[in-house]
Amino acid sequence: MSGNQKQQTAITPTREENYAEWYQQVVRAGDLAENSPVRGCMVIKPWGYALWENVQRVLDGMFKATGHRNAYFPLFIPLSFLEKEAAHVDGFAKECAVVTHHRLKAGPDGKLIPDGELDEPLIVRPTSETIIGATFAKWVQSYRDLPLLINQWANVVRWEMRTRLFLRTAEFLWQEGHTAHATQEEAVDETMKMLRVYADFAENWMAMPVIQGRKTDSERFPGAVDTYCIEAMMQDRKALQAGTSHFLGQNFAKASEIQFLDADGQQKFAWTTSWGVSTRLIGAMIMTHSDDDGLMVPPRLAPTHVVILPVMHKPETAQQVLDYCRKLAEDLRAQHFAGRAIEVEVDARDLRGGDKMWQWVKKGVPLRIEVGPRDIEQGAVFMARRDRGAKDKQAMPRDQFVQGCAALLQEIQDGMFARAAAFREQHTRRIDTKAEFEAFFTPKRAGDENQPAEIHGGFALAHFCGDAAVEAEVKDRLGVTIRCIPLDAPEEQGTCVITGRPSSRRVVWGKSY
Amino acid sequence: MSGNQKQQTAITPTREENYAEWYQQVVRAGDLAENSPVRGCMVIKPWGYALWENVQRVLDGMFKATGHRNAYFPLFIPLSFLEKEAAHVDGFAKECAVVTHHRLKAGPDGKLIPDGELDEPLIVRPTSETIIGATFAKWVQSYRDLPLLINQWANVVRWEMRTRLFLRTAEFLWQEGHTAHATQEEAVDETMKMLRVYADFAENWMAMPVIQGRKTDSERFPGAVDTYCIEAMMQDRKALQAGTSHFLGQNFAKASEIQFLDADGQQKFAWTTSWGVSTRLIGAMIMTHSDDDGLMVPPRLAPTHVVILPVMHKPETAQQVLDYCRKLAEDLRAQHFAGRAIEVEVDARDLRGGDKMWQWVKKGVPLRIEVGPRDIEQGAVFMARRDRGAKDKQAMPRDQFVQGCAALLQEIQDGMFARAAAFREQHTRRIDTKAEFEAFFTPKRAGDENQPAEIHGGFALAHFCGDAAVEAEVKDRLGVTIRCIPLDAPEEQGTCVITGRPSSRRVVWGKSY
Repeated sequence: MSGNQKQQTAITPTREENYAEWYQQVVRAGDLAENSPVRGCMVIKPWGYALWENVQRVLDGMFKATGHRNAYFPLFIPLSFLEKEAAHVDGFAKECAVVTHHRLKAGPDGKLIPDGELDEPLIVRPTSETIIGATFAKWVQSYRDLPLLINQWANVVRWEMRTRLFLRTAEFLWQEGHTAHATQEEAVDETMKMLRVYADFAENWMAMPVIQGRKTDSERFPGAVDTYCIEAMMQDRKALQAGTSHFLGQNFAKASEIQFLDADGQQKFAWTTSWGVSTRLIGAMIMTHSDDDGLMVPPRLAPTHVVILPVMHKPETAQQVLDYCRKLAEDLRAQHFAGRAIEVEVDARDLRGGDKMWQWVKKGVPLRIEVGPRDIEQGAVFMARRDRGAKDKQAMPRDQFVQGCAALLQEIQDGMFARAAAFREQHTRRIDTKAEFEAFFTPKRAGDENQPAEIHGGFALAHFCGDAAVEAEVKDRLGVTIRCIPLDAPEEQGTCVITGRPSSRRVVWGKSY
Repeated sequence: MSGNQKQQTAITPTREENYAEWYQQVVRAGDLAENSPVRGCMVIKPWGYALWENVQRVLDGMFKATGHRNAYFPLFIPLSFLEKEAAHVDGFAKECAVVTHHRLKAGPDGKLIPDGELDEPLIVRPTSETIIGATFAKWVQSYRDLPLLINQWANVVRWEMRTRLFLRTAEFLWQEGHTAHATQEEAVDETMKMLRVYADFAENWMAMPVIQGRKTDSERFPGAVDTYCIEAMMQDRKALQAGTSHFLGQNFAKASEIQFLDADGQQKFAWTTSWGVSTRLIGAMIMTHSDDDGLMVPPRLAPTHVVILPVMHKPETAQQVLDYCRKLAEDLRAQHFAGRAIEVEVDARDLRGGDKMWQWVKKGVPLRIEVGPRDIEQGAVFMARRDRGAKDKQAMPRDQFVQGCAALLQEIQDGMFARAAAFREQHTRRIDTKAEFEAFFTPKRAGDENQPAEIHGGFALAHFCGDAAVEAEVKDRLGVTIRCIPLDAPEEQGTCVITGRPSSRRVVWGKSY
């Protein structure tokens, strides 16, 4: 019925035509988020927020299962706190919201102006190492108080000048884990454990394959000793850093004086970690899975698994169809998938069937069911999967659908992961010469700002000599950075793809978000 | 074993001795929250945050069951937005955090100073009517878009000069519901529906009896047409406003231009509501239920329902006791209470038994179980209820405890409600003369700032002529305000307790937080 629309694709432009604009249109068409009147801040709409709620629910369970507890720390950080760790303040000073006054008064022309200047400016937290560190210093006295395993769900602000919905916004929502340990070894273990939690979540819940690795020195979190990350490939072959886990050594413990009396009677500084993921994950999910018809939600994180569309053209059968659909919904809700009841919506709105169907396609709901009077007679449903073409509908016995629904959802989930993994595989190349490296990252056709889809090959696995100056030069010249040194990269003697100097391990190079 | 401590009570001072200080000590001893290095902002510690998580979980379910969906709006509000509604900006201008710069630079002496002045100052949201209104104006075009039923979980900032943990802090966590409707009637219905949701939550989950009522004009939310509230009596007989639901009329719709094309072809302004509760509820819970041994958590909101304390004095039986306790915990977790599995903690820390036990008393866990080798032989447990004296322990057969645990928790919950309701009843008086009214609110003994416990009688149900000047005079002279005009107050001819003028309904007068 919407064949016409289908031929054009539901989203204009397509990924091929203009990837960046396609992304904006998928976000818009999926009713996920929009720009707000406040520069750089987004409004997360109900469907987008429901995705975030599912991300939160699952991750929160994983954090608690690994012994962490939630707490809440102040939104504001006194400027002097931020200054305690030198690299840290350098990293954030250029992009922070500064509160300088605590009230408003009428100015000379009657308009309100800031009043009540603060003795010390307050920074809206860009991250909370310093304020949490100051608190940990009070909580930690003895080795018996360790490990201290805390997580916070919060909003943070980084005054980015160029923003993009979910991917880079001035305010975003995230979680930040902060832990303190008695020994370096325990802190390193924690850092790696939480990296694995993130990778597990990305792969098994978001259906997004990721590379786990360590950042080079130049890409480290400001103040960290080591930053580990999960990196995913988007459909424009660019890398997206989807989560980070930092081993902070004793840097913040010394800055905040987190000290404890150890079992051996010695006063020692604690070893700390921090780790976080943000609403950026929603952007990653969109860019990993969506197609030219819009969003495709991984079933395990879907706010609605199944939408039922009653076909109610004829007034005389409308109520019967609706009742049948509601009973079907009830039966589906009695089934479980991925730890919760299957979520079903019966969409009985008075809208054209085609418009209604396409709204759900664009929202990415995994399964759509159409039920009309004839289907009821035959005890059948018309089923469409979001991971197949919108017109690809399949009649099947009602009860078979109900019984098999959870398995079908898992099949879709697995298929989405496999497709994304194949895509990454296809666009990852082992490269050993500078010429090939440069060709790989050179646009295949003239691109502009809005047209990065075809400008490069993807991920290059190539040797690197470890020289930060070389890294900087490649970044400047080609816009390519080392995404990470993969944890599972085997030792392999080779020569740096840029300098020819010896190297013992390949790293992942790519363009990134 | 801690009889000495018990005689002194676990909390010093007691409620009688110094109520305000007792409150601070209960918060401290219960490990609920603490002051942060940032003026007026608190750190919510894991146990306090776990209570808030349970509040959120239950309320969020109630909001969704009544058709609301969550979304997220910017932390910052442009000054010009706040100014759109005149009463609104007047209400918040005196106490708001103002962001004026977006980066830092090194000043003349090398210290960092604010840089990058914003064209327009941004206010850290004290509440979100104006920014959400601007968004609703885009979302609402037709009567088909209504009702629009949105909720936001967020942090807000009001620059209070005198703060108290949970009760009044510069930053606090809350939810704010915002809805838009086609008609006045629907918006009023929504306002009342959400007031009932709050009352239901307060009474059936927090075990805190509340009076539902309407605020007088002078106590209305800035910009509202009508403010409804739930008011609870604390153990110092003061009133605490625990939640508000506002009928905003078309005030914010006009300020934000939320207009729609109605079914009759007319362009109309929407009718809006807003409603909220905050982390203040945790303060209300503490002050309603705690005693001189510390916090007492209502079982339906308890992060841990049962704590099991293994008695492991003898090394040769320690492992056996621990194993037995873990099995007991498993069996308890298979039981359900108030919609979730019973939450059990086995506290096997290497701490003196008395210290350990008192920590849990002060955290307010509803049930404590002690298990030693002899109990195992007898198939019994030693059970103590937090709502009884700390030494009041009762031996009972293990399986009987497991099977009866949920019923016992509900019995404790009901008892807590009954006790709070009796307390309120006892300290509520119908008053008909000015002399009695003044005596009721006059301190029984000289009190100071920190000693309000005995300074007045409680709630007075008395007639009021409706004159705002009279209300203001009573507030100035006695520190007494009209808490609300109860929804269930019967019509009753009488005379104003202050002026003698005619009145048709009693109102609730009280001192308040």
